Amino acid sequence: MDIKAHVQKLGIRAKAAARDLAKASLGDKNAALKCIATHLDKSRQHLLDANELDLADAVNRDLDSALLDRLEMSDAGIDGMLEGLRQVIALDDPVGAITEIGERPSGIRLSKMRVPLGVVGIIYESRPNVTIDAASLCLKAGNASILRGGSESINSNKAIARCIYNGLTDAGLPRSSVQIVDVTDRQAVGELITLTEFIDVIVPRGGKSLIARISEEARVPIIKHLDGNCHVYIDSHADPTMAIKLAINSKTHRYGVCNAMESLLVADKISNRILPDLCMEFTKKHVELRGCKKTRILVGSIKSACESDWSEEYLAPILSIKVVQNIEEAIAHINRYGSKHTDSIVTQNAENAQLFIENVDSSSVMVNASTRFADGFEYGLGAEVGISTDKIHARGPVGLEGLTSQKWVVHGDGQIRH
Amino acid sequence: MDIKAHVQKLGIRAKAAARDLAKASLGDKNAALKCIATHLDKSRQHLLDANELDLADAVNRDLDSALLDRLEMSDAGIDGMLEGLRQVIALDDPVGAITEIGERPSGIRLSKMRVPLGVVGIIYESRPNVTIDAASLCLKAGNASILRGGSESINSNKAIARCIYNGLTDAGLPRSSVQIVDVTDRQAVGELITLTEFIDVIVPRGGKSLIARISEEARVPIIKHLDGNCHVYIDSHADPTMAIKLAINSKTHRYGVCNAMESLLVADKISNRILPDLCMEFTKKHVELRGCKKTRILVGSIKSACESDWSEEYLAPILSIKVVQNIEEAIAHINRYGSKHTDSIVTQNAENAQLFIENVDSSSVMVNASTRFADGFEYGLGAEVGISTDKIHARGPVGLEGLTSQKWVVHGDGQIRH
Repeated sequence: MDIKAHVQKLGIRAKAAARDLAKASLGDKNAALKCIATHLDKSRQHLLDANELDLADAVNRDLDSALLDRLEMSDAGIDGMLEGLRQVIALDDPVGAITEIGERPSGIRLSKMRVPLGVVGIIYESRPNVTIDAASLCLKAGNASILRGGSESINSNKAIARCIYNGLTDAGLPRSSVQIVDVTDRQAVGELITLTEFIDVIVPRGGKSLIARISEEARVPIIKHLDGNCHVYIDSHADPTMAIKLAINSKTHRYGVCNAMESLLVADKISNRILPDLCMEFTKKHVELRGCKKTRILVGSIKSACESDWSEEYLAPILSIKVVQNIEEAIAHINRYGSKHTDSIVTQNAENAQLFIENVDSSSVMVNASTRFADGFEYGLGAEVGISTDKIHARGPVGLEGLTSQKWVVHGDGQIRH
Repeated sequence: MDIKAHVQKLGIRAKAAARDLAKASLGDKNAALKCIATHLDKSRQHLLDANELDLADAVNRDLDSALLDRLEMSDAGIDGMLEGLRQVIALDDPVGAITEIGERPSGIRLSKMRVPLGVVGIIYESRPNVTIDAASLCLKAGNASILRGGSESINSNKAIARCIYNGLTDAGLPRSSVQIVDVTDRQAVGELITLTEFIDVIVPRGGKSLIARISEEARVPIIKHLDGNCHVYIDSHADPTMAIKLAINSKTHRYGVCNAMESLLVADKISNRILPDLCMEFTKKHVELRGCKKTRILVGSIKSACESDWSEEYLAPILSIKVVQNIEEAIAHINRYGSKHTDSIVTQNAENAQLFIENVDSSSVMVNASTRFADGFEYGLGAEVGISTDKIHARGPVGLEGLTSQKWVVHGDGQIRH
């Protein structure tokens, strides 16, 4: 099989579909999303059977349990997909929204109109529900999408894709509005990320090494999420009970997610009131602690954190802890070692909260909230195609707005430049 | 000289300066811009002498007259720089602006805060005034900048840079807020565009081949302007007098600019009322016309346009002309051959105007206005660091908003995820 030609063909079809989708009405797009939901609901057994094939294959290939966990679909998982679709249907149409700018001295009247990006490529691993999240958000934003899931979930993704194709056809939208790459060969990824002629943006989701490789080789612009080394800083003005609750939730609510806390900073002044109790809680929950010198003096027998711990995204029940002199040291530490994902301060002092918000250079900065809230659904975006740690276009959870852009609209009455 | 190490050092300094600049008040930034203006004004003779060196060198190197034209500075050119600085000073501070989003069901309160991008690299050719435009916009947006002008303008740029450094120092802002790359070796460009650790975005400005090479090799995200194949479409419902005036202005106001019309489309129905008069006007102005078959029947002895003419950005007194059946053909032609820069419809029919606006996929779409208005100054952005024909981040003229991004801000009272 000529993979280059195959991917090129997907690109050509996507570009053609994108032209129709850009013009599709809100009603058409929502109808398609509803039809897709109907097909998913009707195809539950077929979806679970396909997923069973992938799971069996993964066991044969001796893939790790975390991957198996992400790969597994269930009836509840399908319910989740349907709920996700309902939420995307409920969102306003971003396309066509006008921002008035006003009349210029020349007499031209200026505004901006929100428009789709065109063709979006998504490259992801394991979790089959990404197929639905990504397809539905791209569709609602008026973009055609090309989805390339991991080889380990190929059967599940093909089964989901059939429901999507059927839904699109029922609603009269182009079948190529959503296409999955059903070639598992890795070359397909290389072709996708260099297909500048037909793809407007690539959103890679997955492990750091996958993202790094894609960043290195891509020619299509990418919106990426490299890693999530998130911090909670417990300020000297923190409410100790709230601080402990937020630290525990940020770390232990789920370990394998990018918005979990990986490093805890505690102001020196309050550290003796916080760390003994908090570390006991973590130990009860079997979280391995790695502390700075001060932390170890306060809480005794925990491992010593080394320099590399401050940059580490464990994605596991491991936490590094550092006692800092003050908020300035906390901010400097986060900006140096963090990954610009999500960082939270616990404080009752409004001035310190503001200092933290203004100076921590991360896509989400929080005051008295769990880092786990950095999420498209929690932010009201319906879902997310990814969480960007980049600086341009979109930062943080990428939803409909991140999947669109704005063009300038000029109205005149015959104005010319002098 | 170790160019890699040199560029790396610029990057390190820029990153450090960016941290201070992000916190700089509007007053501090405007004071620095005023001080820079004062130094430019005081250094007129020095600037012109330095420019003289570049011009003499360009003549020796036999560089073409268009380049000499762009390279030459004058007292009036310096006045233009000062006026540009005044306009940037007059702009609101984009940094810190809050967009309220509201409370989520979890109780967290969500907003977005506009923030600088960090370090911006600008790569450009010839025109020394870009040094001031780019430096001042980046500074106002709270970004550190690294500017790499063409080797042909190195003396002019060094002289301008000295004024910038002195102005920054007078105002107490870091001297490394703006740095020029004073190495003319081309390797410096290669190093800049791969310095992902320290540079957040690169804006290349220049000829298509330069941009294409940078796009190919860059690892830092880029905001680019590839070319400007702009169209005017004269609809069957156009006012003929207005149509002729707009077509003439769009083409002949200036030839070497990216927002000049390169292709004219005329609705069949109105073509016999427009083209004979219009083509006579163009011929008077020594514009070479290349027409489709229908055009040539209507206006006689002009060259025949070939397929490649429809994609050409002449940047010269040459124009391709095509008679189209209707607005649908015009839109399809523009989306196929255009460069997504700027396209204008001339029509008195509101429905056709709307159809054109919604369906032409360009960074600026216009109704009854000259394409020459697609410009940062005309749009009220003060100036522009470039005009983006990309889809992500910024489309069209890139000013302060395009040089900033938004981060998410979450306020809670101890909310955790359940």
